[in-house]
This record gives sequence, C-alpha cells and structure tokens, in this order.
Amino acid sequence: MNKQDNTTTNISGQHFIGGNWTGKADSFTSFNPVENKPISWMFSEATQQEVNEAAIAADNAFAAYRQTSSIQKADFLDEIAKQIMTDIDDIIAIAHQETGLPLARLQGETGRTCNQLKMFATYLRSPSDVRYADAANPERLPLPKADTRLGYLPIGPVAVFGASNFPLAFSTAGGDTASALAAGCPVVVKGHPAHAATSELVTKAIARAIETCRMPAGVFNLIQSSEPAGARTLVQHPKIKAVGFTGSLKVGRILADMCSARPQPIPFYGELGSINPQFILPALMAENAESLARTQVQSMMMGHGQFCTSPGLIVALKDPALKRYLASFTDEMAMQEAAPMLTPGIAATYQKMTQALMSIKGVNVLSQGKAATASHHTRPLALTVSVSDYLANESLQDEVFGPFAVLVQCDTMEEMDQLIAALEGQLTASIHGLERELKDCGQLIENLSYKVGRLIFNQMPTGVEVCYSMNHGGPYPASTDSRSTSVGIESLKRFVRPICYQNMPSGQLPADLRPENPQLITF
Amino acid sequence: MNKQDNTTTNISGQHFIGGNWTGKADSFTSFNPVENKPISWMFSEATQQEVNEAAIAADNAFAAYRQTSSIQKADFLDEIAKQIMTDIDDIIAIAHQETGLPLARLQGETGRTCNQLKMFATYLRSPSDVRYADAANPERLPLPKADTRLGYLPIGPVAVFGASNFPLAFSTAGGDTASALAAGCPVVVKGHPAHAATSELVTKAIARAIETCRMPAGVFNLIQSSEPAGARTLVQHPKIKAVGFTGSLKVGRILADMCSARPQPIPFYGELGSINPQFILPALMAENAESLARTQVQSMMMGHGQFCTSPGLIVALKDPALKRYLASFTDEMAMQEAAPMLTPGIAATYQKMTQALMSIKGVNVLSQGKAATASHHTRPLALTVSVSDYLANESLQDEVFGPFAVLVQCDTMEEMDQLIAALEGQLTASIHGLERELKDCGQLIENLSYKVGRLIFNQMPTGVEVCYSMNHGGPYPASTDSRSTSVGIESLKRFVRPICYQNMPSGQLPADLRPENPQLITF
Repeated sequence: MNKQDNTTTNISGQHFIGGNWTGKADSFTSFNPVENKPISWMFSEATQQEVNEAAIAADNAFAAYRQTSSIQKADFLDEIAKQIMTDIDDIIAIAHQETGLPLARLQGETGRTCNQLKMFATYLRSPSDVRYADAANPERLPLPKADTRLGYLPIGPVAVFGASNFPLAFSTAGGDTASALAAGCPVVVKGHPAHAATSELVTKAIARAIETCRMPAGVFNLIQSSEPAGARTLVQHPKIKAVGFTGSLKVGRILADMCSARPQPIPFYGELGSINPQFILPALMAENAESLARTQVQSMMMGHGQFCTSPGLIVALKDPALKRYLASFTDEMAMQEAAPMLTPGIAATYQKMTQALMSIKGVNVLSQGKAATASHHTRPLALTVSVSDYLANESLQDEVFGPFAVLVQCDTMEEMDQLIAALEGQLTASIHGLERELKDCGQLIENLSYKVGRLIFNQMPTGVEVCYSMNHGGPYPASTDSRSTSVGIESLKRFVRPICYQNMPSGQLPADLRPENPQLITF
Repeated sequence: MNKQDNTTTNISGQHFIGGNWTGKADSFTSFNPVENKPISWMFSEATQQEVNEAAIAADNAFAAYRQTSSIQKADFLDEIAKQIMTDIDDIIAIAHQETGLPLARLQGETGRTCNQLKMFATYLRSPSDVRYADAANPERLPLPKADTRLGYLPIGPVAVFGASNFPLAFSTAGGDTASALAAGCPVVVKGHPAHAATSELVTKAIARAIETCRMPAGVFNLIQSSEPAGARTLVQHPKIKAVGFTGSLKVGRILADMCSARPQPIPFYGELGSINPQFILPALMAENAESLARTQVQSMMMGHGQFCTSPGLIVALKDPALKRYLASFTDEMAMQEAAPMLTPGIAATYQKMTQALMSIKGVNVLSQGKAATASHHTRPLALTVSVSDYLANESLQDEVFGPFAVLVQCDTMEEMDQLIAALEGQLTASIHGLERELKDCGQLIENLSYKVGRLIFNQMPTGVEVCYSMNHGGPYPASTDSRSTSVGIESLKRFVRPICYQNMPSGQLPADLRPENPQLITF
C-alpha cells in the first residue's frame, strides 16, 4: 500500500447525502494501476439504507431546485466549475494516482469538465430553443380553439454513474451531472470505485458551490460503491426518474433492463461504446497511405485505447496503396509502448478478448506495440482479416476496450457495403476520401449514416466536441437510447419532458411561454 | 349476422403487405355493438409468416422512402387525405356499423384524421424547427474545432396499433401513422379487430395514394389480427424500430416490456389513458356550481365516456356550493342514456370495474344515468368518496373506460394537495377557478403540473387539439414515454433520432443543414 491514509490526505471515504458526509469508510480501497497495488484510502460501501437516503434527499431537494430560476442554476454551475478549479492541483494529483492517466491529460479533462459546466450556464442565461404556442380562436367553427403553449419540466432526480475512463468529464461533475442540474434535476452520483477519492474531491467542490449558491442540500449526492447491489438499488428506487450511464454493454444492459422492468419504468441513457469504423477510400489511400496509418495509430493509442470513440475497425481496399499503409501502420505500432490499463479488470478483459479473437480462423496479427515489461502492462495490437471471415464471426464486432484495432481488407467497394450492412450501431464512423471520391459514394454515406450517431469526414473520432450540434450516442448497442446524446447542449433534453398549458392565465405561465419571449413562435 | 358478406360490400378481409392484398379471410368477424351481434365480414388472422412479410416489406421500402424529399412526403400525406375523402361515405357507414359511434362524430373524426395528415404535409413544406451547427475553427488552441452539424434521421419501420375508440383518428391513417410517414418511416398497422373493415377501407385509400405518388409499395402495410400472437410477433420483429400504441395499460405494458427485452430494444410509445382529474376551486364553485356540473357530465358522456381524456375524477371542497353542484350533476346524469360500448369486452370490463369500486368501504353512488333497456347497454355512473377513503384505495385511481366519474369531497385545500401528491401520472388535469383564485394557488398548479402532460384552466379535457403546442402524453402510466406526445407536430419526433455530421463537404450535407437554410443557427 502507499504511505498516505485517509487522515493525511483528507479523504473521508464517505458518502455525501443531503448535505452530510456519512458512512463508515471500511469497505474498499482505491487502486494505483501504474504501481499495480491498492492505495490505502478506505471507502464506505453504500448500504441499501444509504442509497435510499440519497434518493430521498434528491427528491426532497427537487421541489425547491426545480423552482430556482435559470440564472440561479447558471450561477450554481459556474460556481461548481470555479470550486473545481480551486482544487485542481489536488484533484489532478489524486486522479493521476487512481487512474494512471497522464497529468497533462487530466489537466485537459478538468478544463473540459469546467467548460461543460460553464457551457450549460451560458445556455441557461440565453437559451436558443424555440417554444411553440397556438393562439386561441374563440370564433373557430365547429369548436373554438383554446390557447395552448408547450413547455418543459425537469423529470426528477437523476442517477448518474461515473465512468472509469473519464474520471472527471464523464464522472462526478461530468456531462450527465451538468446536464441534469441544468435541466433542473437533482443528482445522485454513484462514484466509480476506480477513482473514489477523485469523486470525493470533486464532490467537496460541488458541496462548497451548494453552500455559496444556497442551493437545497440534496441537489447533489454522492454514494460510494464497488458492489453491484448499490447500483441495482439506485436505479430501482422509486424516487429516481432517469439514469445517465457510461460504461460497458454488459452492465449497461443489466441496468437498462431493470429500469424498464420497474413498476414505473424510467429512461435509461446508457452510452455503451462502439468500435468506430474507419473507411478509407482508394484515391485518398493512394495519396496519403503513410499519414493515414500514422493518424490511425495515434488516435487508437489515445488514453491507451480506453476511449469510447477509439477507432477499432479499419476498412480499406486490397490495392497497392494498402501495402504502404500496412507498412507505415506496422512501423508506427512498433513504437507504441505497452502500458497499464485503468483497472486490473479492464486489463484482464483486454487480454481475454484479444486472445480469443486471435484464435479465430482467418484472423492474423497485423502488428503489435512494444512487448510488455511488466505483467500488468498490455501491449497494443492490430489484427487483420478478410471481409468474409469478418462477417462470419460476430465477435469481431465486440468492442475491445484498449489499444486495439482490426483491419478488414476488401476486394471491392461492394464488399465495403456488405460490411456496413452487417455493422451494429456505432457512436461514430469516419470516411476518409478525396472530395471527388466522396461525391461518388453517396450510397455508402447514406448507408453508414443509418448505423452511427456521428459521421465524420477525413478526421478521427477521438475527441468529442462539447457544443450544440454534437451527438454522442447512436443506434443500439452504441447507446441504449438512440434519440439522445450524452454530450453537448442537447444532452440536457434527456432530463426534461413536455407539458402543454391550455388556457392558462399569462401570470401563471412559465416565463419562456409568455408572449414577451422572443423565441416563442405563435401559430 | 347481418345480411352483407365480403362479396357484396367489397371487403376482402385480407392483409395489405408490400402492395398486395393477401391472406385467407376465414378467421374472425367484425361485430356490431349496437345490434350486439357479429357482422358477416370475415377477416384473416395474420400468421407469423405474414407479420414477418409485412415487417420486411416495410424495411425494404425504407431505403427508398427515407430518400424521398420533404415535398414528396407532403404530397403523399395530402393524397392520402384526399383519397380518404373520396371514400368518406363508405368509410363512415362501415365505421358506424363496427363501432356504433354516431355518424356526426365519425364525420368529424374523419375530418380530423385528414386535417392531421394535411398538417404534417404543411409542416414538411415549411418546417419550423431550428437546426444547429457549430462552425469550424482551425486556429483554435489547443485543438482545432471541426465543423459539426446536427441532423435527424428517420428511425426505421414503425408498428402502429389501431385504437378501438378512435377508428379513424387513432387508427389506420391516424396520428401515429401520419407522424411516422412524415418522419420518413414506413408503417405496419395492426388493425384493431373491432373495426377491421374500416381499417381495410382506409388502407385502400392509402394504397391508391401510394400508386398516385409512386411511393415504394411497402411504405404502408396493414395486418389484420384479433389474437395476441400477431401483436407479439410484430413488436419483436428485428426490422421494426419503434411502436406507436394507444390502448389499455394492461396490453400496453405487456408490449412495452417486450420492446425493452428485445436483443435490440426499441422505443415503445404507449398512450395508455388516465382519469383526468378536475379540480374545482371554491370561489368559482360558488359562482358557477350548476354550469360546472352540466359541463362535467357532458364531457364525461362524450363517446359514452370512451375517450382517453374523459374526466373521471372530480375534486371539490365540501361547502354549500358543492350541494348545488351535486344537485345539478345528479339532474344532468339522470337525463343520460344507457348505451352500448364499442365492444362487448369493453362493456364487460366496465361492469366488472364499477361493481368492484361500488363495493369499497366509504364509496357511495352519487348519481346514475337512465337504466339500461338492453343487457348490452351500460349505464352512466358517478360515485362519491371522502379524501381519506380515496387515498386508502389505490384501485379508485384505475381508469374505468366508460361513462364514469368519482367525486372526491375535501374538507380543506390541504386535502386537495394530499390527493395531488398521491396521484399517478395523468394525460391531463383541469383546474377550475376564478382568475384571482388561480393567483393564490401557485403551489397547487406547480404540484399538479408534475403529474400531467397537459394542464388545463377552466376547460374540460375532452377534445385534443392537433397543433404544434399540443402534448398528449404524460408521466407513467398515462404514457409509457413521458418525453413524447402522440398528438400534434411534435409527435413526429418520436420517429427520428439525431446524427452529427462532422467536417462533411457541403454538397453531401442534408438540405436542412446547409448554410442557406434560414432556420440553421450557427454558433
């Protein structure tokens, strides 16, 4: 174990429920993946009673929080960002210990986390959404027309699951939390056990923002848990009205099924990853084989391949230029280091899955990174396979979380189309081609667009921009709800639902439905 | 049986699959609820194979249909409306036989059905939705910003379940079909067996529109089915990507659970009805007790109470004005006729549920309509109960589909609030009060708004306007998906999902994402 313990580092190991730190920190520890050993901080495992208290605290806060103004919510989100920046050095140092992610990356991720919070604040101060109203017409025949106006209400307390691979941007104060709070919904975060101390530090920043902004105490709650029971209790709690989740297909599907089977079903927004196929068209390949190969390897090595947008499938035509691509790809791969993964569990799954895929008939090793120098390090790997063998083995479409890709060699463009037809839903896909080539492959673009949440031209999928027009989701299994995005302003809409006000006196209408709102369109 | 058979009336009794009439019409008949006997038209019961063919026909049509322009889709919807109007006399005559609904009502419902189709056509010609784009910024540090644009794609073939109580507006060419076709999704309708011949006639109108507009054959399909197996096969078919359903909580929940449990889960939009509570505030009651009572009875008697928005719960203060209300209510009820229901099954359920509710302790008969003169007629009924007894018996919140209401007498406004807190999700609720009273009951308005999809002031809930700002849905169990409406322009959004185009050459962008679209907001 490391030298620090809870006392010296000020990590309580407790839950934050209704404004209070609570629970006995005696159940599980963090783990340092670089040193491959536990960290001595101890954390409490949330009991059923504690999960219940957190959900009830969130629900108790809902009545007050939903009535705060947009400006008050904006100030609150800005204050959370400010408080995180106050503690940024401690947060990054501790996240580095818990995840092994480089300091520069964590610095950038903290910036992104704060920018997300501030982006929602900016939106709340000046929302761009139109609102609809249909004017009354008492003279209409055969029946008069009533005045109707379409508004939106927050859906209620939201359960947010921290993701292992983004300990800040998709975790405690990440996109799900920011969008839920912006929508007017209190939050219960189930911290990811792989970065429990980071979750606690971020929660402390949020707690200070709650005090400064005089928000209701239960507007944000953190429960620490490393066992499935905590998650199950949380998503089945009657006061929880929606769930935001980023993680594996296996766990995501179990929780999604629980949400659907509740007496009162609730939306489950699970962003479950994908293999993000890269299609390379021949003319661009002929021009740029070497740089395409380098860019591909760099993208798939980001976060040691532990990005949901990691490009895990490359599709290209078997032609002379491909040989140059393969040579450059192999050279580039040979320079990549083996490294620890975020958790021993992720490393074990990577080893198991890659071993299984390598044993499939027709699958060959294309290239590898440097050999591992420690047993807990995983080596980057690329496999290659023909279209027919790829299509014959569904398991080749499974996401291998880590520095991994499969290259599929096609004889014809028709084979590329066949592969697209067989693809499962994806977060993203990229088409790499010259502009004139793109013009000639309208059907490929059309077919691929129906498989993905984001369609990219001549760029890599890693790096998800936080903006109005982003979509981070896609057809199942990329997401459990293809109608939603977990990144960008539109992610807020996961946590509201419509309400029509009919014949309501204008004094009682929400502000955005009154005639003075310039974004109100009246028919 | 009636005199007509399939030959003389031109009812084939078949399914319409991929442009062909198919199936042997030998399985079930329509039923005339007024005469209380079967009609001799025979209908085919869709086999698993036929359901499969219909789903595949819809999927085959999808590739072509999704590429039709908005104008082509608008022309198609207009043509369907035109073709329905061509056959309106036959459609109304047959729907009248199958449902017993008055001719004037069916005339109005046909008009509404056509207006819905034309409204979506108008929308497609001139959509009001904004589109978002975020401009590229190659100079941005530390990373350049790519051009991103948020578009929407149709979700795929949609299964639509015809509703028993609106044989036209919520059935074959009803709101679900119109919105799915407008969104770019082919449709498979499972016709309601209570109006199978009406479904066939409307399908014939749609079939002519498909030919006139040269739409792909499988863009619309009808399967006839009276057994649960047909519905089950349809919602579980891998080519079906969403379901629109209007009907009972029991059936809706079974189908919703099937959709969630599929290998690839799909959205299930079930509009499952509600009891639409009416809250009467004391000052208005004192002024208008008599007219409030008459309006309530008239609203609950519409369609013999078989509206999903039928006002089935009245909540008022126990004060002297209430006595006047009760007297007028009882007088008005006494004039209401007993009448047949849409189907013998609905009539039997009404009898069973009302008997059970009358046997609950503390529940008393408030008033009844005229006694039934035939065994298949059902008598309008209103019960009364105290708040405490209402809250003690959850079954009093179950929707009784028919001419029925429960009046709850409160001692205080606090009791009204308690009742609201215990309410399940509702499609609608109304608050009846003087304007000055409304100003003083902000908390009641606030609390009630979180229980309903439409909040109405001083009007009855029956009559759902088809317009931009309508919401016909609400928290579960009113709807299985409170984020959606089944009526109005917004209902189209149930059948699309977002896609982000990143760095796409403008020539390949969908038209609504190009810079020339005035509704494109670029950040």
